[in-house]
Amino acid sequence: MADPRPIGVFDSGVGGLTVLREILRRSPAESTLYVGDNARAPYGVRPDEEVVAFSRQALDVLAASDVKAIVVACNTVSAVALGEHRRRYDVPILGVIRPGATAAALATRSRRVGVIATPATVRSHAYFAAIKDENPAIEVYEHATPALVPLVEAGELRGPLAEQTVADALAPLLGSRDANGEFIFPLPPSAKVDTLLLGCTHYPLLRSVIQSIAGQRVAIVDSATATASALAELLSINGLEAPRTTRAPADDAGQAEHSRAGETIGPVTHRQMTTGDVGAFRALAERLFGDAVADVESLDLAVAR
Amino acid sequence: MADPRPIGVFDSGVGGLTVLREILRRSPAESTLYVGDNARAPYGVRPDEEVVAFSRQALDVLAASDVKAIVVACNTVSAVALGEHRRRYDVPILGVIRPGATAAALATRSRRVGVIATPATVRSHAYFAAIKDENPAIEVYEHATPALVPLVEAGELRGPLAEQTVADALAPLLGSRDANGEFIFPLPPSAKVDTLLLGCTHYPLLRSVIQSIAGQRVAIVDSATATASALAELLSINGLEAPRTTRAPADDAGQAEHSRAGETIGPVTHRQMTTGDVGAFRALAERLFGDAVADVESLDLAVAR
Repeated sequence: MADPRPIGVFDSGVGGLTVLREILRRSPAESTLYVGDNARAPYGVRPDEEVVAFSRQALDVLAASDVKAIVVACNTVSAVALGEHRRRYDVPILGVIRPGATAAALATRSRRVGVIATPATVRSHAYFAAIKDENPAIEVYEHATPALVPLVEAGELRGPLAEQTVADALAPLLGSRDANGEFIFPLPPSAKVDTLLLGCTHYPLLRSVIQSIAGQRVAIVDSATATASALAELLSINGLEAPRTTRAPADDAGQAEHSRAGETIGPVTHRQMTTGDVGAFRALAERLFGDAVADVESLDLAVAR
Repeated sequence: MADPRPIGVFDSGVGGLTVLREILRRSPAESTLYVGDNARAPYGVRPDEEVVAFSRQALDVLAASDVKAIVVACNTVSAVALGEHRRRYDVPILGVIRPGATAAALATRSRRVGVIATPATVRSHAYFAAIKDENPAIEVYEHATPALVPLVEAGELRGPLAEQTVADALAPLLGSRDANGEFIFPLPPSAKVDTLLLGCTHYPLLRSVIQSIAGQRVAIVDSATATASALAELLSINGLEAPRTTRAPADDAGQAEHSRAGETIGPVTHRQMTTGDVGAFRALAERLFGDAVADVESLDLAVAR
């Protein structure tokens, strides 16, 4: 039942690399193929028809590469085009919205969840609807935080500028602090969320700043982690996991393979493709993730497939 | 892509009805077929070979009934036989352990999770392993609470006896309360869990008592809710959801069909089968769940197929 084929991951830009990172952490035996449509990012400002058409071109590339599952690591595409893509392709397709919404619904104790996302994602109310699907009793406060993506892409992931920008962005949701450090709420007290869902793939890179601003009483939930968990479960249920062999006790040949819990996993490959500038993608990815994305290939979606 | 076939739900007894209840709540358009092997319950005291063989007989019945997915709502079978069953059947099979473990890993803020379950489930350490799979940094405290299933089956779901039994059962995990109502911990302070996973399908029936004993600061996570969410996501990803048609504005013919968010869903059927006494199953199910299980059929697994 083991299946060595790669998992396809698609995003309009580099933000989906946070999802890729969680997939690698959660499922180290899996190979991956990442497509970023950086030349046409961001998708959030485009009409739905373009979002469907552009993402279909990218998914055509992944499907033609014989991936065993596709993760749409893009909130806009997850909100707008998932149903259509699922009807078109035989391969199982995960979005990031449902797993994130499920995680937030599970994490909240007070049944008050805040969602921060780009203006386009907030306008779609996709997280609102998905959380209500999980539990209609949960109050959902969506809030657009347009300043955070530019902050991340500028590499400002910590320090005074990041802290001030995040504090300003979260103030309408969390309230302002008074002299004693307690929050003063411009919203009714019912808006005092105990769970904050990071509804944009860029935001996990600001997680530690967001946690410090929100305080330890607020659970920070991100779609990247939840989607990686959902993918692991999907692979298990559908019998699509990469092959693993139990390591023989005498086998200490020191192969350059990953190992976990006494198992040996096969050779793993990770490829990244971008429609944008390869050097810029690599530079940004390496600044955000270290040296995890050494090989970046160029892709022309307009002529691809 | 819509698929009207039922979802199969299997448990060794009636506990899986808590999972069925959550499936009905989360996915009201879906039909279900429940098989309880009450004649041979509980499975927790049986050798693995019997657990595999008995549950295979039940899953053979479900597979022969053309179910589109199977939920193994039994912790023992989920721990012991899931991989083998997934290799045997073409239909996707969900267990309750992974969804519950994922939910607990997402819900904890302090990274300290308590798991209460039957002695057999605790001995298997299946929840421990599954939570560590999600996040190795989480400390997992497993605790057997054998008094709770008899309490539920006696219908003692609230009141002084239930409260005292639950308090005694949870004391080693949560500590005892001092005169001020604060917990005194017999375990090291690190055992102060902030999330309690109900690792037995009977326990959600004691949820309100457990929550009142544990206090509002402890998140109560149950596998039933998490499994119903995972099933909804699986049906969506694999294109297996039951058909829904958008209700036409003029269609106010008052059909006896469920509706949600302006949609009409097709006729839904729910069947329950037990290998045990039909009257006893119905009586217990109705005491626990109201009138949701009017029709209970008899099933002989030894000769079934």
